[in-house]
Amino acid sequence: MRWIRFSKGDHIAYGSINGDTVTEVAGAPWADATPTGKTYNMSDVKIEIPVIPPTFYCAGINYATHIREMAHKRGVEPVYPSKADIGYRANNALVADGEDVVIPAHAPPKMNYEGELVVVIGKKAKHLTEANAFDCVFGYTIGNDVSERTWQRGDRTFWRGKNTDTFKPMGPWIDTDVDLDAMETVIRVNGKEDLRFKTNDMIFGIAHYLAEVTKYITLYPGDVMWMGTDGTSPDLVHGDVVEVELTGLGVLTNRFVKATA
Amino acid sequence: MRWIRFSKGDHIAYGSINGDTVTEVAGAPWADATPTGKTYNMSDVKIEIPVIPPTFYCAGINYATHIREMAHKRGVEPVYPSKADIGYRANNALVADGEDVVIPAHAPPKMNYEGELVVVIGKKAKHLTEANAFDCVFGYTIGNDVSERTWQRGDRTFWRGKNTDTFKPMGPWIDTDVDLDAMETVIRVNGKEDLRFKTNDMIFGIAHYLAEVTKYITLYPGDVMWMGTDGTSPDLVHGDVVEVELTGLGVLTNRFVKATA
Repeated sequence: MRWIRFSKGDHIAYGSINGDTVTEVAGAPWADATPTGKTYNMSDVKIEIPVIPPTFYCAGINYATHIREMAHKRGVEPVYPSKADIGYRANNALVADGEDVVIPAHAPPKMNYEGELVVVIGKKAKHLTEANAFDCVFGYTIGNDVSERTWQRGDRTFWRGKNTDTFKPMGPWIDTDVDLDAMETVIRVNGKEDLRFKTNDMIFGIAHYLAEVTKYITLYPGDVMWMGTDGTSPDLVHGDVVEVELTGLGVLTNRFVKATA
Repeated sequence: MRWIRFSKGDHIAYGSINGDTVTEVAGAPWADATPTGKTYNMSDVKIEIPVIPPTFYCAGINYATHIREMAHKRGVEPVYPSKADIGYRANNALVADGEDVVIPAHAPPKMNYEGELVVVIGKKAKHLTEANAFDCVFGYTIGNDVSERTWQRGDRTFWRGKNTDTFKPMGPWIDTDVDLDAMETVIRVNGKEDLRFKTNDMIFGIAHYLAEVTKYITLYPGDVMWMGTDGTSPDLVHGDVVEVELTGLGVLTNRFVKATA
């Protein structure tokens, strides 16, 4: 089942997608969503960020090729993670499918995409095991962990490099039924395929991350966990349109626009 | 004015404090809070976390003595920050005044307190200047940035070291009128004063942080910015009670309890 968070004028709600029709519900789909009886055409609503997470988790480095290629770019030896440490991103940076990524006027020119699978939590969970970890997962969406590499390396934290306003596109919808092992991440820049990798070919898989994190941390409904990316991005410039497709799930499309002031 | 977020049974609301009386409002005090006509005795309500922030900012290292003493403990040279980089903490870890900090059963023994001034944002803000930065501030509360130093240093991020469940006590209330320059941070362990410093004696002050961060980031109502700490903490053990007082504002009290499993 596919769920979108959408707006119609000032009204924001969740709805299920059936073909071109959105069937509205009151409440969140992982809680006590109840049909309102209203339906809309997909083309008549605006797609919003699929969830504003209480906590915004990100696996960071979780694919071998990404680590190897990024190290090569920087002229250093690759360092593979020894355990599933989780990181964080910030809600101010979220934008929806179709919205612009704004490159600040005074940003260095190392703007990169990172196409990621996003796990959406549906149930409060602690002390999960790898065997039951997926019980807390509501569904999946797509994230683009947009990064400015100069800031990422020069600052003490990722605050500017990864959390500048608009640097975290997420969407377009949440899909509750996906085939993770068949899924490929395909990234296109201006319509041309730039990168393709097996989405589930992670160093530490989803179940392992969920089990490790919940040894210490309670996950809550609406939390998201971005699972990291493979490969490397070209440096993106004003006007570039980046599409992150997760095959079978959907396409997240955002244009990069340089701010003028 | 002092605002408390409180519960009475399953009911959670904000209220203003006058002596021993809480005057309830509907909505958040920085939005369109309207009196409900209900009042309570302070002793009849439970103090809740004063705000669940959309984004949870933390200045991290922002006092000279803390940097010097922590470096000395580790046998390394002190490194002072060259600019106001902001970091993040996670909502799962928040607990209220009077609630326990739970030391996980398998945690290393380097549990420390960090008493901090917390800035609560009341208005959406971007591109602030140091001159107008305080316009977005609703008020102030107290935070204890509880840290397990082994995890803090050994993990790739602060996820376990600073964001394990219950590691972020915040409260007890939000005060809109404080005298920052007169304020002292006083920390007591089991009733005995352990540390005292001038709260506003920061490397980078509040106005500077707000101006720097909002060059890139939009702040939203309810966001919090923890301003860092001075000095160092002893290693805390099961049963220790830590009080963080900000003079003129209040006292945040939490007991440390070792989990049995």
